[in-house]
Amino acid sequence: MKKISILGSTGSIGTQTLDVVAMHPDSFEVDGLAAGSNTALLLEQVRRFKPRRVSVASKELADDIRTQLPAGVELYSGDEGLVQIAAGGDADYVVTAVMGSVGLRSTLAAIEAGRDIGLANKETLVTAGHLVTEQVRRKGVKLLPIDSEHSAIFQCLNGESREDIASITLTASGGSFRDLTREQLRNVTVEDALRHPNWAMGAKITIDSATMVNKGLEVIEAHWLFDLPYEQIEVLLHPESIIHSFVEFRDSSIIAQLGNPDMRVPIQYALTYPERWHSPAQRLSLAQAGRLTFREMDFARYPALKLAIECGKTGGTATTAFNAANEVAVARFLRREISFLRIEEILEEVLGRHPVQSHPSLEQIEECDRTVRALAKSL
Amino acid sequence: MKKISILGSTGSIGTQTLDVVAMHPDSFEVDGLAAGSNTALLLEQVRRFKPRRVSVASKELADDIRTQLPAGVELYSGDEGLVQIAAGGDADYVVTAVMGSVGLRSTLAAIEAGRDIGLANKETLVTAGHLVTEQVRRKGVKLLPIDSEHSAIFQCLNGESREDIASITLTASGGSFRDLTREQLRNVTVEDALRHPNWAMGAKITIDSATMVNKGLEVIEAHWLFDLPYEQIEVLLHPESIIHSFVEFRDSSIIAQLGNPDMRVPIQYALTYPERWHSPAQRLSLAQAGRLTFREMDFARYPALKLAIECGKTGGTATTAFNAANEVAVARFLRREISFLRIEEILEEVLGRHPVQSHPSLEQIEECDRTVRALAKSL
Repeated sequence: MKKISILGSTGSIGTQTLDVVAMHPDSFEVDGLAAGSNTALLLEQVRRFKPRRVSVASKELADDIRTQLPAGVELYSGDEGLVQIAAGGDADYVVTAVMGSVGLRSTLAAIEAGRDIGLANKETLVTAGHLVTEQVRRKGVKLLPIDSEHSAIFQCLNGESREDIASITLTASGGSFRDLTREQLRNVTVEDALRHPNWAMGAKITIDSATMVNKGLEVIEAHWLFDLPYEQIEVLLHPESIIHSFVEFRDSSIIAQLGNPDMRVPIQYALTYPERWHSPAQRLSLAQAGRLTFREMDFARYPALKLAIECGKTGGTATTAFNAANEVAVARFLRREISFLRIEEILEEVLGRHPVQSHPSLEQIEECDRTVRALAKSL
Repeated sequence: MKKISILGSTGSIGTQTLDVVAMHPDSFEVDGLAAGSNTALLLEQVRRFKPRRVSVASKELADDIRTQLPAGVELYSGDEGLVQIAAGGDADYVVTAVMGSVGLRSTLAAIEAGRDIGLANKETLVTAGHLVTEQVRRKGVKLLPIDSEHSAIFQCLNGESREDIASITLTASGGSFRDLTREQLRNVTVEDALRHPNWAMGAKITIDSATMVNKGLEVIEAHWLFDLPYEQIEVLLHPESIIHSFVEFRDSSIIAQLGNPDMRVPIQYALTYPERWHSPAQRLSLAQAGRLTFREMDFARYPALKLAIECGKTGGTATTAFNAANEVAVARFLRREISFLRIEEILEEVLGRHPVQSHPSLEQIEECDRTVRALAKSL
């Protein structure tokens, strides 16, 4: 019986993690659930999965639901509550599925508590990859990717040696605007952007797919997860999203992982690794798919991807700044304060002004995050 | 330093095995070479790779080349010579790349001598899979696939558990006549048949690709190599031959092996497993390939594949008979004695008349092989 806590239980990854847990009730038990402000869904999850500890975004929300919790359930709130769910209780395994850089401190706390991590919060590695991977090594815990691309790479590396890798390639669908020119992007709306062709995901990640920022964050995440230089990480346009990613070895052999888009598969793999359990995900029929297509990534069409990789190569707080600026810019776009193309401009402007610190401490990372957010809001 | 002997050194797989050996002169040494009748090429190979023992198809051919061999090189001939190269000398590893069922006794001799086997002679497993796999288990040697499809499956199973396999799928290009209807096949010539779209191979295997017999033999080979029931072995039309084969696991995840068609890659992998070494094979660019296409296998279009799988399910001498009848029929087609479609008819007729023996001994298999060949010649 594996005891699991979930940070971000009411989001897209959180709810699908609970779907996986529900499919294997004899193998998984829920210890803690941390939600944001969707308290109605959290209460439903509490009734169904009987966690011993829950957390919500604020003291006010906690007070709202206190009387509706079963007796004995511990209730926390805010950033401190997130850390309590991550590192308190007696979970063996923590799924970090909160959006954005808020996941960093709680992930570090979970690692410090000796817990294996199912990582769906890519910002954790983007903002502080050196700290997280160093701590993972020191504590000897497992850091298992949940992102479908990273899960694919991880699966392709099964039984292989690191020194045999020639390169890894992350595939990219191209997002909701892949058939539009940059000129046509001038007047796209929030509604247009939220129509992703292949995956049903949260709003922020759907916008990040349209700007290709998401792929940039994934490249940086892959750099840390697989300990590979950026020169060995490639990106390929693959509109069908059937090949989730692949590894090329030095004998020229390529191993790829394929499937229908269904996040329950990589989530379950992160929970059951190295085993594979039965999944109700729809099986992929390549005959039915008929064809898979591929195009070189167009870095002129997607300048934010180019910038993300440059930040990755620069290292230090450059990726922290990139991520913080992007979170603010996307939020502003979703609030209709700025246009779609303004997201990229804000990224460029912030990075142009940001004084990069090498090997930053957690405090320096958090300071950088705050400063950059303030700047990105003002632009 | 791995000492290698090659059965069939002057054929397509044999010469490419020596290409791989030549790329890694500090790691491989050639102990023995068995050729057929291409003595000119064999003598060139002897000068270059300095084997200590060689064999040719007949006593006459041996007498022809005796004086041209360097002093000290042992010379053998015929079936006995093949066994000498397989089991004599002090090789660690034997590549079995002779065509047809003649490879069986020598492969069994090599296993009995405790040698690891790089298996390119699929007829060995087709005619006597139960004997070969039993002996491999008993002697504790490795049986490594060289066929690109089986190498692909073998690579996809790296680090995975057998019980997690849902199915394996062998891809098939469709062969030289894949765009012709059965009606159009009536008058095709030997020259037409030898133009394979993707792979440059020997004549017999190119014809076997056009009839899809090759894929049938591969299904039977896969059954024995991976110890899977026929219900878990599928075949998919994939004209580009880029995905060499794939495995579906019970979590619905598919792991596939891809590459440009280049037999040096699976040959080298069989020699270096579990390591992967650098290869000069042309790297695959999926962007350059642009698209991969897939179609359901059409068993009405390819009745010989259907028959092969039926023989596999029947077991015993059914697959021995199928293979022997096919060898004779293809040879007759290549000699222009029969038409292309007559190959399939001969297979059907032979199998219709063949009294299947279950669990045959080696002698019974050889007797079946002789009887069926005589019958197939007479039809």
